Amino acid sequence: MNYGIVVFPSKEIQDFANNHRKRYDPHYKLIPPHITIKKIESNDENQLDEIVTLLEDVTSSLSPFEITFNRVSNFFPLNNVIYLALEDTEPMTNLYEEMNKGMIKEEQPRYPFTPHLTIGQNLMEDELFDIFANLKSQNIQYRMKVDRIHLLYQLENEVWTAYQSFVLPKEK
Amino acid sequence: MNYGIVVFPSKEIQDFANNHRKRYDPHYKLIPPHITIKKIESNDENQLDEIVTLLEDVTSSLSPFEITFNRVSNFFPLNNVIYLALEDTEPMTNLYEEMNKGMIKEEQPRYPFTPHLTIGQNLMEDELFDIFANLKSQNIQYRMKVDRIHLLYQLENEVWTAYQSFVLPKEK
Repeated sequence: MNYGIVVFPSKEIQDFANNHRKRYDPHYKLIPPHITIKKIESNDENQLDEIVTLLEDVTSSLSPFEITFNRVSNFFPLNNVIYLALEDTEPMTNLYEEMNKGMIKEEQPRYPFTPHLTIGQNLMEDELFDIFANLKSQNIQYRMKVDRIHLLYQLENEVWTAYQSFVLPKEK
Repeated sequence: MNYGIVVFPSKEIQDFANNHRKRYDPHYKLIPPHITIKKIESNDENQLDEIVTLLEDVTSSLSPFEITFNRVSNFFPLNNVIYLALEDTEPMTNLYEEMNKGMIKEEQPRYPFTPHLTIGQNLMEDELFDIFANLKSQNIQYRMKVDRIHLLYQLENEVWTAYQSFVLPKEK
């Protein structure tokens, strides 16, 4: 079973991202626009309860925070991915690091964590450059509050289905 | 904005339903298999917070319950829909009724609430009868626990995105 821990952006940002994803992202119909915090592959059906307990525990001590998407970037040549990038990645990276404390040991991730909202992937190299050149001139400024994370799992048809949300408690 | 309050069945049932939905349900790519408790159309962007508060309140006093899908049924001639039906609809109907207490006033629903998991819709009449004849001979027996409901909202591209889950507290 594949589990995913994600942040879904606001409706405004999801709609904006989908306008590009529908043309450039083959995962467009498998999951709404999202920022992946962590993906877990497991053969252990009981791991779901374990992840829920962990996420309840971690999120209970976190507070909501603001993020701003301010440009389009890409992972070329590592990956032919175009994404909405954050002005300041630190709050999302903190969330990722908190999530990893106590998380089931895993192999060293292939790349350092870079929070991103994918709007295009599996692109041909010249296609990637064309799209990127076009989008990087756009004035992008989307601010939103991250006040919840979502635990999803993947069905046989590769679509991701929601299992549980974890709301970050408001500051006292 | 369109809001939906749904129950997502277990992975096993979602996978089974999708095997049929991919051929017979045009909403296959818009939302994973689900039982709709309530759909709310609203022009009021602030209504989301109101619905969340209401659902937190309602679910806090409910306990998880078991349901069994035991056959395929249809809504013909009212609607050309084929669905997985419940052995006993009472627990889901109770949930629906609890949900309606204190819910924003609405027009009288067109049909009485009949909990169902759609596996085919918008079917031609002869197609509906063919599929139904084929499926009704299958031995269907899927038992699951309903221990959470999900609040979703609909994006511009008609896909439903998860906003919040509400776990039904375990009995003391």
